[in-house]
Amino acid sequence: MYESKSLLARITEPADLKRFSLADLERLADEIREVIVSTVSKNGGHLASNLGVVELTIALHRVFDSPEDKIVWDVGHQCYTHKLLTGRYAEFDSLRQDSGLAGFPKRTESVHDVFDTGHASTSISAALGLLAGEQFKGGRNRAVAVIGDGALTGGMAYEALSHAGQLGLPLIVILNDNKMSISPNVGGLSKYLSRLSMKARYQSFRRTFDSIAKRLPLVGDVFFDIVVRLKRAVKAVFYTDNFFVDLGFEYVGPIEGHHIQQLEGVLHDVRRLGRPVVVHVITRKGKGYGFAENDPGSYHGVPSFSVTGGLASKEPEALKTPRLAKTSVPGNAQMPAGNRGRPSFTDCFGRAMLDAGGRDNRVMAITAAMEKGTGLSPFKLSYPKRFFDVGIAEEHAVTFAAGLAAQGLRPVAAVYSTFIQRAVDQVIHDVALQRLPVIFALDRAGFVSDDGETHQGLFDIALFRPIPNMTILAPAGGGELRRMLDWAFTEPRPTMIRYPKGICPPEITALSQPLERGRGVFVREWETNLCLAFTGSLYPEVWDAADRLLSSNIAADLYNLRFLKPVDEQYLADIMNRYDMVVFIEEGMLEGGFGEYAAELAARRRCTAQVYALGVSGNYAAQGKREELLHYNGLDGAGIAASIFQMYAENRILPYSRGAVR
Amino acid sequence: MYESKSLLARITEPADLKRFSLADLERLADEIREVIVSTVSKNGGHLASNLGVVELTIALHRVFDSPEDKIVWDVGHQCYTHKLLTGRYAEFDSLRQDSGLAGFPKRTESVHDVFDTGHASTSISAALGLLAGEQFKGGRNRAVAVIGDGALTGGMAYEALSHAGQLGLPLIVILNDNKMSISPNVGGLSKYLSRLSMKARYQSFRRTFDSIAKRLPLVGDVFFDIVVRLKRAVKAVFYTDNFFVDLGFEYVGPIEGHHIQQLEGVLHDVRRLGRPVVVHVITRKGKGYGFAENDPGSYHGVPSFSVTGGLASKEPEALKTPRLAKTSVPGNAQMPAGNRGRPSFTDCFGRAMLDAGGRDNRVMAITAAMEKGTGLSPFKLSYPKRFFDVGIAEEHAVTFAAGLAAQGLRPVAAVYSTFIQRAVDQVIHDVALQRLPVIFALDRAGFVSDDGETHQGLFDIALFRPIPNMTILAPAGGGELRRMLDWAFTEPRPTMIRYPKGICPPEITALSQPLERGRGVFVREWETNLCLAFTGSLYPEVWDAADRLLSSNIAADLYNLRFLKPVDEQYLADIMNRYDMVVFIEEGMLEGGFGEYAAELAARRRCTAQVYALGVSGNYAAQGKREELLHYNGLDGAGIAASIFQMYAENRILPYSRGAVR
Repeated sequence: MYESKSLLARITEPADLKRFSLADLERLADEIREVIVSTVSKNGGHLASNLGVVELTIALHRVFDSPEDKIVWDVGHQCYTHKLLTGRYAEFDSLRQDSGLAGFPKRTESVHDVFDTGHASTSISAALGLLAGEQFKGGRNRAVAVIGDGALTGGMAYEALSHAGQLGLPLIVILNDNKMSISPNVGGLSKYLSRLSMKARYQSFRRTFDSIAKRLPLVGDVFFDIVVRLKRAVKAVFYTDNFFVDLGFEYVGPIEGHHIQQLEGVLHDVRRLGRPVVVHVITRKGKGYGFAENDPGSYHGVPSFSVTGGLASKEPEALKTPRLAKTSVPGNAQMPAGNRGRPSFTDCFGRAMLDAGGRDNRVMAITAAMEKGTGLSPFKLSYPKRFFDVGIAEEHAVTFAAGLAAQGLRPVAAVYSTFIQRAVDQVIHDVALQRLPVIFALDRAGFVSDDGETHQGLFDIALFRPIPNMTILAPAGGGELRRMLDWAFTEPRPTMIRYPKGICPPEITALSQPLERGRGVFVREWETNLCLAFTGSLYPEVWDAADRLLSSNIAADLYNLRFLKPVDEQYLADIMNRYDMVVFIEEGMLEGGFGEYAAELAARRRCTAQVYALGVSGNYAAQGKREELLHYNGLDGAGIAASIFQMYAENRILPYSRGAVR
Repeated sequence: MYESKSLLARITEPADLKRFSLADLERLADEIREVIVSTVSKNGGHLASNLGVVELTIALHRVFDSPEDKIVWDVGHQCYTHKLLTGRYAEFDSLRQDSGLAGFPKRTESVHDVFDTGHASTSISAALGLLAGEQFKGGRNRAVAVIGDGALTGGMAYEALSHAGQLGLPLIVILNDNKMSISPNVGGLSKYLSRLSMKARYQSFRRTFDSIAKRLPLVGDVFFDIVVRLKRAVKAVFYTDNFFVDLGFEYVGPIEGHHIQQLEGVLHDVRRLGRPVVVHVITRKGKGYGFAENDPGSYHGVPSFSVTGGLASKEPEALKTPRLAKTSVPGNAQMPAGNRGRPSFTDCFGRAMLDAGGRDNRVMAITAAMEKGTGLSPFKLSYPKRFFDVGIAEEHAVTFAAGLAAQGLRPVAAVYSTFIQRAVDQVIHDVALQRLPVIFALDRAGFVSDDGETHQGLFDIALFRPIPNMTILAPAGGGELRRMLDWAFTEPRPTMIRYPKGICPPEITALSQPLERGRGVFVREWETNLCLAFTGSLYPEVWDAADRLLSSNIAADLYNLRFLKPVDEQYLADIMNRYDMVVFIEEGMLEGGFGEYAAELAARRRCTAQVYALGVSGNYAAQGKREELLHYNGLDGAGIAASIFQMYAENRILPYSRGAVR
C-alpha cells in the first residue's frame, strides 16, 4: 500500500531502527506522520496525540531495548508510532477495525505491548510493578512510563509517583507535556542542557560521597544524619526543587520533544541514572498536520475525514445514519425509518442541561476532562460559574459534587460509564450512604465503537444496583432522557441516568409518558403471551427483534424498563404473571444485571411466567462498531430474535399467532 | 458520670468555648483526654489519633464558627474531641454502641458533622465542594479539611488539592502530621512564627501590587505577564517552594500542634487569607496517655482495655470468644463448642502467606497501609524484599500488583473489602481484562463490628461477580482459606478470596476436601428436601439455623458454596433439581449477589426447586458488633431459621420430619 522506498517497510523490530542515520530518522518521522494521517482519515482514531509523539517514540525505541526494557503507554491512545515500529506496519490499515489492530496497546497483540492501557493514569503504577519484578528477579532492564500532563492529574499517578520515590528504583517517567498545563513552577524557562550537565556533576559528586560514607560504618546514625543534611544542601544548590523532587524523583527538563537527537541524548543519560527520574518533554499535539496542530482538541479522537480538507469536509459524526430497525408492522406505536439529522443522546443531555441551568441556578455541572464528550460545552458557555472541569479525576469529581449537594445545590456529574468505574467507592461512600442528591449522567453506557474492551460501558448496572438509596434510569430516547433528568432534579437522593453513545431513535408517544417511580412503560402492548423487557439503549434492537418474531407469527409486547432501581416489585411481578414468558434484555453484564434480579423476584413472588435474561457475559467481543458488537454479542435484532426462537423451542410454549393479535 | 466541676459539661455548643480562658482551655484539654481514654477503654475505638488532635480541635472550634464554617474530618476517626465540643458530651459513653454515637462523623447525628467520612482522602474534595457551594451562594463562610499525613498519600487528596489550587478558593487544609512521614522537603526545621510573619508581609505587598495592577487595565496582557513573573520572583524570596505551593496553595508551617494559643494565632491569620492554604501542624499520636504515646500503632483502633494497665492487661481481641452455634445434633459433621484460642481468619491468612512465601519466592505481598490489619507482619519480617506497603493507595496497589504479575511473579494484594471499592476500575482494567494472576485477599468481608456503615464489606460479591476472568472464593474456615490460597497460586488468572473479620470456626472434614473448580462442598448431607447454600463466612450462623430448624422437625442439608464465580452450572442445577427448596444465604448485598444469579440459573435451566435468596438489602443496620449486625439483618441462626419457617408457610412444602432423617 505504501511505496517500496518506505523506511517503515524496512523495520520489522525496533532494533532495526538503531542502524538508521539521523537523516533517515527525520524522513522516517515524516513517513510515520503520513501513514498515521492517512490511516486515521480512513479508520478514525486518535490523531493529535499520536502526531505529537512521533520523535519521542523513535528516540525511546533507539535508546531502550523493547521488549526487554518495558515501555508502558499511559491511556495508550498515543501508541500508533510504537505499533508501526514494532512490526505492525503491514497490518496498520486494519487499525481499530473488526479483527484488526487495536487502537490501544494489547499484550495479546505484540510482545512489545507490555501492559494494556486505555484509562488514564495507570502507567506509572504498572511500570513500577514491572520494574520491581524485574529487579527482584535480578534483571537490569529498565521500565519507562510515558504519561501526558492530562493523565498526571489523576490521583493514581500521584500514588504511584509517591511509592516510586519511596522505593528508589530506577523508574523512568516521561512526562509528555503537550499543553504546558502542569504547575508553572515545574521547569520554568531554564535550558535543559545546562541542567542535565549539572545533574550529571551532582550525580558523580553524590556517588563519591556515598562511597566515602559507606567506608565509615562505625560513625553510625549521627554521621548519617549529617550526610543526609549535607546532601540536601548540595542538592539545593544544583536543583530547583519541584513537585517531582519533593516526591523523591530526579527531574530533567523541559526538553523539546520533536528533536530526535536531543531526546536520544537525554534518554541515554537517564537510562544510566539508577534512580527514579521524571523527564519532562514538551511536545505539540497534532504536530506536522496543520488542521490538527491548530485545533488539537477537535482532532483528539476523530471519525474518518478527508486528508486534504480536514474534518470540516465530512459530515459530523453525530449526524451519520446508524443502522436502525425497519418498521413495517401494525401496532400501537411505530418507529419511523431514517434518522438523518437526529441528535445524539449526548446532544440531548447537553440541551436538557442548558435548559435546566436556565430554570434553576442551583444546577451545577461537573465533568472530568470530558466537557465536549459529555455535551456540556453549551452549559459551560452559558453558566461558566456553575461549570467545573476537574481534570482527569473522577474520584474527586464525585466527592466534590457531593460537597455541592450538601450545600443544597443540584450538581450533575457527567462521566462516561467506563470512567465512573474509577469512582465506585466515592459513589457509595460520599454520595449514596449520605443520600446526597447528586445526579450522575453516564454517557457511553453499553457498547462503545472502536476503542475496544477498555472503553465498554457494560459494568455500570451491576456496579451500582447494590448501592442503597440509588436510583438508576435508562432512557430509550432523547425526550425520555430529558424527562428523566428533569425528574431527577426533584429527587432528594442520588440518581444515575445511563445512555448510549448513539443517535436518539424517533420519539413515540409511549416514551413521553410521565415517570412513575419504579415502573417502566409499554411501547407496544398487544396483550400477547410474550413480553420483551429492555434497558432503554436497546429500544431499536428490541423493536427490530419484535418485527422479526412477528414475521414468524410470534407477537411480542415491548416493555421499556426505565427504572433499573428501585423497582415497583408488585407492578413487575404482575407483568411476570400476565405473560407466559418475559425476556429481560439489557446492554450490560448479565452477572449482577437486571435480569438476574428479575429472576430472583419471580422466584420469590412465585410468578408464573418463564423468565429469561439476555445480556453480555464473560469475555464478550469488544472491538468494532457498536452495531457490530451488539451483533456479535447477540443483542442486535437478529440475535435477540434468534434467542427467543430458541427459548420457544425449549419451552414448548405456543406463540400467539399473527392472527391472534387484535 | 464526670464531676460537676467538669468544663465539658458547660459546653453545649462550640461557641461556649470562646468564653474560656487560656488556663481553662488547658484544663479542658486534660479533661477531654481523660474522657476519651476512659470511654475508649470501655467501648473500644480509635485512641491514638483522637488524643493527638485535642488542642487542634479546640483551636479550630475557637477560631471558626461551626456549623456555618464547615469542618470536614478526613477518615473521621479523630472526631471524638469534635463530638465532645459540639453538644455530645452527655451521650459520649454510648460511643460506638448499638444506637449510640457513631465513631465517625455523621450528618444525621449533628449539624456540626457536615460531611460523613470513614474512608481516607475524601476531606479535601468534600470541603472544596462545600466551599464552592457556599461561595456560589454568596456566603463568606469558610471550609476546613483536616487530613492526616497518611491520608494524604491517597491519590484522591491530590486530585482535590490540584483542583483547589486551580479554583483559588480560600480552602483551608490542615495537614495533621503525626509521623513526619511526608516528604522531608516540606517544612524542614524552620520556625513557624518568622515564616508566618514573612507571609503576612508578602500578603500585604501582594494586595498592594494587585490593586495597582488593577488600576492599569489598558496595559493588558503584556503587563499582566510581567506582574505574574514579578510575583513569582517575589514569592521565591519569601517562600521555600514545596509540593503544596507547586499546586497553587499557600503554605504555613510546620506548627507545634499541642500549643492552643499558637494554633489559634495561626488559624486566625489563615482564616483571613482569602486563598487556598495548607497549614502544616505537627501532632503526637496518643499524646497524654503514656501507653498510646509510646506505641501509637497498637493504640490506633483498639478493643476495650484497662486504663491503668493498657492493652496488655486484657485478653487480645483475636482470642475473645464469639457467640457461636451450639451443636447438639446428630449428623455426619459436628461443630464443637468453644473457640478459645482459635485463630482469626486474618491470622490464618498471615500464616498461609508465610508458608507460601517460603515455598515459592515468586510470592509477593502488597498492602495499602494495613500491614498489621491484614496479618502480613510475619511475611514482611521473613521476606522484606517481597513485601510492599504502598500507603493509603489501593488503586496503585492493584495496578502495581498487576505489573508484578506481568513479570511472572505471584502477587497477593491484601485489602479490606470496604477499601477495595476504591480500586474497582483497576481490578477490571489492569488485572481482569488482561487476565493477570493477581490474588486479592479481601479481609473484613461482610459485617464489621463497631465502625458503622462506611466500613462494611458488603459490596464485594456484587462488584466483582460481573468481571470477566475473575474467580471469587469464600472460605468457611482457616484451613479452607489456606487451601484456597494455595489453589489460587496455581491459577493463571486473578482470584479473590473473601473472608470475615472473625475467629475461624472449628475445622471439619468436609471443609478439607480438595477444591474443584466451580463447586462447593456439603458440610451436612442427609439428603433431605431442603438445602441451605451459603457463603463461607456464615457457616456458624447457618449451622445454628439448621439446628433450630431441626428442633422443629425440619432437616436441612448444608452446602458451602466455596466458588461464587465461576460456577459449575450443571452441578449447581443438579442441586436445584434434587431438593424441593434451596435457600442461598450470603453475607453481602442481595442485589447483584449470588442468590440472584442462582435464581436466574434456576429459571434458565428450569430447575424444579423453589429458590430463595437471603442477604443484605437497602438501608441495612450498620452499627454494632458483627453478631448484632447479623442479627438485625436476619442473618444470624435465629433470623435465617425464621425466614425459612416463613418460606415453608408460604410454599406449603412439607418438611422432612426428624424421623425421616437417616
